[in-house]
Amino acid sequence: MDFPLITSRKNPLVRAAAKLSSSAEERLSRQEFLCEGARLCEDAARSGLAVEACFFTQSAQQKYGAYLAPVLACAKEAYRIEDHVAGLLSGTKSTQGVFCVCKWPGTLLTGVIGFAPARSCLVLENLQDPGNLGTILRTAEALGVSRVFLLGDCCDPLSPKALRASMGAVFRVVLAREPSAQHLAQMLRGHGFALHAAVPDSGARRVTEIDFAQGLHAVFIGNEGAGLTPEACALCGDRVTIPMAGRAESLNAAAAATILLWELQRGAAGKEE
Amino acid sequence: MDFPLITSRKNPLVRAAAKLSSSAEERLSRQEFLCEGARLCEDAARSGLAVEACFFTQSAQQKYGAYLAPVLACAKEAYRIEDHVAGLLSGTKSTQGVFCVCKWPGTLLTGVIGFAPARSCLVLENLQDPGNLGTILRTAEALGVSRVFLLGDCCDPLSPKALRASMGAVFRVVLAREPSAQHLAQMLRGHGFALHAAVPDSGARRVTEIDFAQGLHAVFIGNEGAGLTPEACALCGDRVTIPMAGRAESLNAAAAATILLWELQRGAAGKEE
Repeated sequence: MDFPLITSRKNPLVRAAAKLSSSAEERLSRQEFLCEGARLCEDAARSGLAVEACFFTQSAQQKYGAYLAPVLACAKEAYRIEDHVAGLLSGTKSTQGVFCVCKWPGTLLTGVIGFAPARSCLVLENLQDPGNLGTILRTAEALGVSRVFLLGDCCDPLSPKALRASMGAVFRVVLAREPSAQHLAQMLRGHGFALHAAVPDSGARRVTEIDFAQGLHAVFIGNEGAGLTPEACALCGDRVTIPMAGRAESLNAAAAATILLWELQRGAAGKEE
Repeated sequence: MDFPLITSRKNPLVRAAAKLSSSAEERLSRQEFLCEGARLCEDAARSGLAVEACFFTQSAQQKYGAYLAPVLACAKEAYRIEDHVAGLLSGTKSTQGVFCVCKWPGTLLTGVIGFAPARSCLVLENLQDPGNLGTILRTAEALGVSRVFLLGDCCDPLSPKALRASMGAVFRVVLAREPSAQHLAQMLRGHGFALHAAVPDSGARRVTEIDFAQGLHAVFIGNEGAGLTPEACALCGDRVTIPMAGRAESLNAAAAATILLWELQRGAAGKEE
């Protein structure tokens, strides 16, 4: 098949795509985002996302043909681009030269309205690092926690860094932004969830003392440096902690989230046996 | 106090320090490494490492005086450096301007000779990413697994990236490099350890089925992409896995290690109650 070739960085389609990569506002207002990398683009296509446009270099076509095929099959438009154009679109030093513009996933909600049933969910408050956010979403998906709320002022899960770290989990985990801790807590309680605030405080209840296999549970995790806000903590009622041998705060944010997610579903994993 | 000022990137002391940052061979042959960052340098000093030399910029002296004090108290030599000299020594874009040359920690062993008793230990085989290695060491320390073996061809735990991710754990966890899986397995068995190979295989034993609180246990974790070598797997005898909800291999290396480390000590944490 023959695809039009884009040779200039000033091409309006390329400029519009690049803006999706650099600006969260642009992503929000257009309800689109830019996906980079052969595997991630394939993931987006296979996860059923609407692919508005695909861009790829000549060498990518040769190297990543198998990944490109499902993307091209569903893309509304597709273009070959020269290497220097790929350099403009890319957030990495060594780009694979495969990009697509996608509509926001239907799983990414702005504000919480309804709530499909789930045994457990995760709430992230004011998380700032896109790498951490992506990694946590990837771990949540792997461990079967498929409802994640982004409370307050979290970073954008559709930024290039968050997408890369998430390995496509952002397309499959149900994600909802919610500015109000009070509204979220009310809604979760209304659905029968017990709310737990994760805190680095050896005086709090050990996470191993909670039987997550019984009932519905939501764990709240706070900002990397500052932790949860006092408001979120107070709304939870229960405070849980990860018992540590070393010095306090010696787990990084993603590692702490991994352990909490693991404990959330550990009981369920045991039950299936 | 007055410290000599270094104004040139060609200063032999600075060049020697920069080489420690860029070359694993240099670190090995001199048995020294370069530490960057106010908090990490302070950590090195407080962990009892021999500080051969300290370098700091004028603005670092003002901003990070409290961190610098314990470093300067034990450094054999100390120098002020101009900002462009700090740029040469730094591995990051925005350096804090604090560096020290340290002797290798006494906790970092080359080859395994003796073995102080421990309830559990971690073996990392052919781990390639320094960020992963540092993060795993940090998590191991936090969770109380203080014996880690670097089997085969692992990356250098004293490289700038590994040091940064470890947050100083590399100074306190007992680390030993060991080229031979057979030798390591023999030694661990001789000390009464049960050996478990971590594999991404849903047919293996679930990690939750093992009572790590009874007896001594060592968990082997393999390379990020390729996993454990067949040799290491065979030497372990037991194969364990992390039950996952999503697709196989959907946890990153650091997240998988976090869960295994957590399970290794989870029983012990429960016992202390």
